[in-house]
Amino acid sequence: MAGVVVQDVQRAAPDVVAGLGACGVATVHEAQGRTGLLASYMRPIYPGARLAASAVTISAPPGDNWMVHVAIEQIARGDILVLAPTSPCEDGYFGDLLATSARARGGMGLVVDAGVRDVRDLTAMRFPVWSKAVSAQGTVKETLGSVNVPIVCAGALVNPGDVIVADDDGVCVVRREEAADVLKKAQAREAAEEAKRTRLAAGELGLDLYGMRERLAEKGLKYV
Amino acid sequence: MAGVVVQDVQRAAPDVVAGLGACGVATVHEAQGRTGLLASYMRPIYPGARLAASAVTISAPPGDNWMVHVAIEQIARGDILVLAPTSPCEDGYFGDLLATSARARGGMGLVVDAGVRDVRDLTAMRFPVWSKAVSAQGTVKETLGSVNVPIVCAGALVNPGDVIVADDDGVCVVRREEAADVLKKAQAREAAEEAKRTRLAAGELGLDLYGMRERLAEKGLKYV
Amino acid sequence: MAGVVVQDVQRAAPDVVAGLGACGVATVHEAQGRTGLLASYMRPIYPGARLAASAVTISAPPGDNWMVHVAIEQIARGDILVLAPTSPCEDGYFGDLLATSARARGGMGLVVDAGVRDVRDLTAMRFPVWSKAVSAQGTVKETLGSVNVPIVCAGALVNPGDVIVADDDGVCVVRREEAADVLKKAQAREAAEEAKRTRLAAGELGLDLYGMRERLAEKGLKYV
Amino acid sequence: MAGVVVQDVQRAAPDVVAGLGACGVATVHEAQGRTGLLASYMRPIYPGARLAASAVTISAPPGDNWMVHVAIEQIARGDILVLAPTSPCEDGYFGDLLATSARARGGMGLVVDAGVRDVRDLTAMRFPVWSKAVSAQGTVKETLGSVNVPIVCAGALVNPGDVIVADDDGVCVVRREEAADVLKKAQAREAAEEAKRTRLAAGELGLDLYGMRERLAEKGLKYV
Amino acid sequence: MAGVVVQDVQRAAPDVVAGLGACGVATVHEAQGRTGLLASYMRPIYPGARLAASAVTISAPPGDNWMVHVAIEQIARGDILVLAPTSPCEDGYFGDLLATSARARGGMGLVVDAGVRDVRDLTAMRFPVWSKAVSAQGTVKETLGSVNVPIVCAGALVNPGDVIVADDDGVCVVRREEAADVLKKAQAREAAEEAKRTRLAAGELGLDLYGMRERLAEKGLKYV
Amino acid sequence: MAGVVVQDVQRAAPDVVAGLGACGVATVHEAQGRTGLLASYMRPIYPGARLAASAVTISAPPGDNWMVHVAIEQIARGDILVLAPTSPCEDGYFGDLLATSARARGGMGLVVDAGVRDVRDLTAMRFPVWSKAVSAQGTVKETLGSVNVPIVCAGALVNPGDVIVADDDGVCVVRREEAADVLKKAQAREAAEEAKRTRLAAGELGLDLYGMRERLAEKGLKYV
Repeated sequence: MAGVVVQDVQRAAPDVVAGLGACGVATVHEAQGRTGLLASYMRPIYPGARLAASAVTISAPPGDNWMVHVAIEQIARGDILVLAPTSPCEDGYFGDLLATSARARGGMGLVVDAGVRDVRDLTAMRFPVWSKAVSAQGTVKETLGSVNVPIVCAGALVNPGDVIVADDDGVCVVRREEAADVLKKAQAREAAEEAKRTRLAAGELGLDLYGMRERLAEKGLKYV
Repeated sequence: MAGVVVQDVQRAAPDVVAGLGACGVATVHEAQGRTGLLASYMRPIYPGARLAASAVTISAPPGDNWMVHVAIEQIARGDILVLAPTSPCEDGYFGDLLATSARARGGMGLVVDAGVRDVRDLTAMRFPVWSKAVSAQGTVKETLGSVNVPIVCAGALVNPGDVIVADDDGVCVVRREEAADVLKKAQAREAAEEAKRTRLAAGELGLDLYGMRERLAEKGLKYV
Repeated sequence: MAGVVVQDVQRAAPDVVAGLGACGVATVHEAQGRTGLLASYMRPIYPGARLAASAVTISAPPGDNWMVHVAIEQIARGDILVLAPTSPCEDGYFGDLLATSARARGGMGLVVDAGVRDVRDLTAMRFPVWSKAVSAQGTVKETLGSVNVPIVCAGALVNPGDVIVADDDGVCVVRREEAADVLKKAQAREAAEEAKRTRLAAGELGLDLYGMRERLAEKGLKYV
Repeated sequence: MAGVVVQDVQRAAPDVVAGLGACGVATVHEAQGRTGLLASYMRPIYPGARLAASAVTISAPPGDNWMVHVAIEQIARGDILVLAPTSPCEDGYFGDLLATSARARGGMGLVVDAGVRDVRDLTAMRFPVWSKAVSAQGTVKETLGSVNVPIVCAGALVNPGDVIVADDDGVCVVRREEAADVLKKAQAREAAEEAKRTRLAAGELGLDLYGMRERLAEKGLKYV
Repeated sequence: MAGVVVQDVQRAAPDVVAGLGACGVATVHEAQGRTGLLASYMRPIYPGARLAASAVTISAPPGDNWMVHVAIEQIARGDILVLAPTSPCEDGYFGDLLATSARARGGMGLVVDAGVRDVRDLTAMRFPVWSKAVSAQGTVKETLGSVNVPIVCAGALVNPGDVIVADDDGVCVVRREEAADVLKKAQAREAAEEAKRTRLAAGELGLDLYGMRERLAEKGLKYV
Repeated sequence: MAGVVVQDVQRAAPDVVAGLGACGVATVHEAQGRTGLLASYMRPIYPGARLAASAVTISAPPGDNWMVHVAIEQIARGDILVLAPTSPCEDGYFGDLLATSARARGGMGLVVDAGVRDVRDLTAMRFPVWSKAVSAQGTVKETLGSVNVPIVCAGALVNPGDVIVADDDGVCVVRREEAADVLKKAQAREAAEEAKRTRLAAGELGLDLYGMRERLAEKGLKYV
């Protein structure tokens, strides 16, 4: 099954991708029916990073980062590399040289369900990475994997060309075909939240704002 | 058992609470006989936060944050929300809208043995949260829990009105009834530490400062 | 077996130690054949710390930090304390008083396969610590361990006098006897990387720079 | 706080304890409103063990089993030892000699939020243990803890004299004062389940047996 | 997205399913190019269980097992329930009553990326379950999920109708469309293994049987 | 560093090895000063296995079991394979074919800080394995490791020829040079335990048998 590079990948429209990035992970996740989150162990290597980008997917053997080199050639401007090892691994698949190369081709960052290294340099470069681990453990270049095939990364299915939204809350994937629709819903949520924020800041209670008191009483909530 | 909101909760005196906050987690924990620490996986969402506050406790079903809305009405100025799910959960029970609401009622922060989201916004607001996870995973509002009942949060028993001390070292709970006494002991420790710090900084060894050499020799320590 | 303090420990030459620190963990780890890394759960308490130093090793019972006091007397300028508990433990073996004392004797930092506390103060002091956990949990002084004996710390064998290299990527140990040789190899790697970085930044692909295309084809990689 | 042995502990009536044991963990847990479960990492050392017994609680330092000896003297016929370390620990606090001693005093088993050893011998003796780990790691006898004080064990509050129900599903604690009432509810559940089992075994669907179809439709469930 | 029950699901041919079950997880996994394994934390509740069956998939909220009742109606003879919670959860979604019901409809077992309870009864029934945890924790019936939609279960994508192969080694999923082809490859592997087993049992070395010596020497292996 | 096979390995005397096996892990571990235990996550694949054997060590890349074939040639009658991956890995390095081959050469079992597969067959063969995981995940044969070099396996240093003692309590390593001495101490412990067991079984308390009451009182233990 391994050993395939798919070259013809469709992406979502750039303004849709950008719009999803502006909404952020929590809002986008809610907007698409609370789906698409990667596992919470995927953490950014520095605080404050946020982006949305189109996925170039990598399926790689444990401890072997050969396919990262292959994937970088497939990057189009505005893409993000998304790597899942074929079995659990924490090795450092990626460091500052690969980031330099990926950025030179238009790459925006990395999501890796394994380890990353050179995080001091990556932070200085402001090259954002969401990973399962930080580890200097080196990898080999011996066994084929695949590029731009569907992968399961940190518990979520990611297809090549899907939109990755990532920030301090973690990582969320949006199907390419649904991206424009999800963006509309996310923007609607944002507009609605703004009004709520003002009222809550003024001391109004969610119990009243959302009209929860009656249903809570029906369910039997007792104040003592 | 679930479905109860206790409204009449006693708090410790504000100056006692403030005094405990100034001492910090490690000192307070030692002062009360090395008890009261929550599990070390409870980490702050940003470095440098520190506080002491009175607990408004929340027992909530997994993946259901309805009771947070109920709890916010119970907040008095200087309180902190303390949430334990009834079974292990990492979902994001709390975000920036709830923080806005809690702060408007006088809430100082959150301790949650589960997940939190919108951490970028919470950090910008300087609304401190100690949590088990950061996760954008949304929750529902379907099942009752309870507010201001005793809970076990991250391995520690927390009663409503107990004092929560939290900083970069983690979270510690002090029984409301013992708070004044613990404060005295903590302040005594702090005073004693100051003198020791000066002597240690001058190069004096703990072996001599604490008179350990004889007991070490008795136990059989050998220098080779 | 416990209860021994070895006083006569050889260190690597100071310029070798310093040179390794300048290369950093990832480079040094590669230079010595991808060996010597401690487990990736060993994380720095604040970002940006980096150092190389000679190990003063501590084997300590769980929840007992008596041997830290003994070890501080053994510190020579440029040393780092390296502590492994004799069974898994997260307690806070070390805080700002011990850091003050260690620094007064010339100590540069701490690597501890357990917990550390007072991290706010340690951060303010810029006293670097790599640890498995942050925990305020206090320890006792009842049972002997040993100082400057070989230990397994976070999965790696550390002998007294070995060189510890640590930065944001984690911690690596270099055998004292091999330190000068490893330094040469590390510096050679650094020189080689610089040229590669320039070419990759200009958009050249690793596939071409490293001449990978032929071998990938031989292995059967297919572009579709 | 440590260093106390409470000798005067009330137990629930023996027939109530026995009745709860016959119902088993899952039924008892449901009968008391889905509360009282210890963490799911508490596993029996051999399959098929099941019991109910009154708790003799032990709060012990990490890596120190001195208090187990103290606790065994407090055992009355039909009791079970319940041990929580004061910080996370996996050491083997208990083996076949202690089991021999506990059994000689009427002890029925052990619940330990840490490690146990000699599991081959304990299995041969049919002395049941629910533990977090199996570990041969030895412990010391240097530091006091307490016996028969309230403890938090594997996330649940256990008071001395509370009823412990344990089987292949794990461990559940029932407050002594509520034990008789919980038993009634548990037995009522069992009776109701028997009738349901017969109908389900005959092929009737839970959807019909519990009348769920209407409410599912109201919530919007769609068959496609 | 939630709230859908797909009723029209295709299955693989019964003899293909049975054939895969006879080959077992390790062989099937190899035969399909080392893909399809669920995470290794999915363990059987008793040793010796093995089966192959067609998946009825369940996407369920954390702590809510309502959809299991819905799914049981969708079971055809020879099916297995496969449940993934929408966020990490260890609650006991399934016990002996549901097993009785599932079996009455022709269900063969359960794969659940969460908890299971009543394991003593399930073992006595020989109703096999592969789960992440054993937990008596009860669940509610408040929130919709979906049945027979694609899910990611323990890190693997499972479509309704895919073939699940499970034994003491864990769980593997085979795409329905590829099942017949994978079976052929698996059977070919089995045949080849038999001959190898005989030669290895006679003391022939894998080094010789597989002709590895030359390639090892080329790679630089040194005997000292 | 990798790529070495050491052929000339000394073993402990067969009667010493056998004697240690008869004492078991807990006793041997105590006899050598509470050292040498591997991490408690190393569990046997079936209950009741116990052995002592001389270590043939394997350092292997993650996901690559080539060196197992190389190691089997180095087995002498009464040896056990001990494998540590060079970075954390759960893949199934070993199954029934390799067990057949190892046994044909005199191999007694396997200790692997990673995964094992075919556990049903291995159990039927009574070929004992202590592992971190059970996983069917296949491995490749692409990258060299080493055989019979010192390794750190599950947190313990293992040299080739060291004695491995393993049973239901886990795994312990004894230095070859110290094996005879440790055996004597272990046998002395066993003799002493037998007398204690008889007295404890008769109801005598450890508090009296070990004369603990006075020291407990000195430390301040209070009975209330």
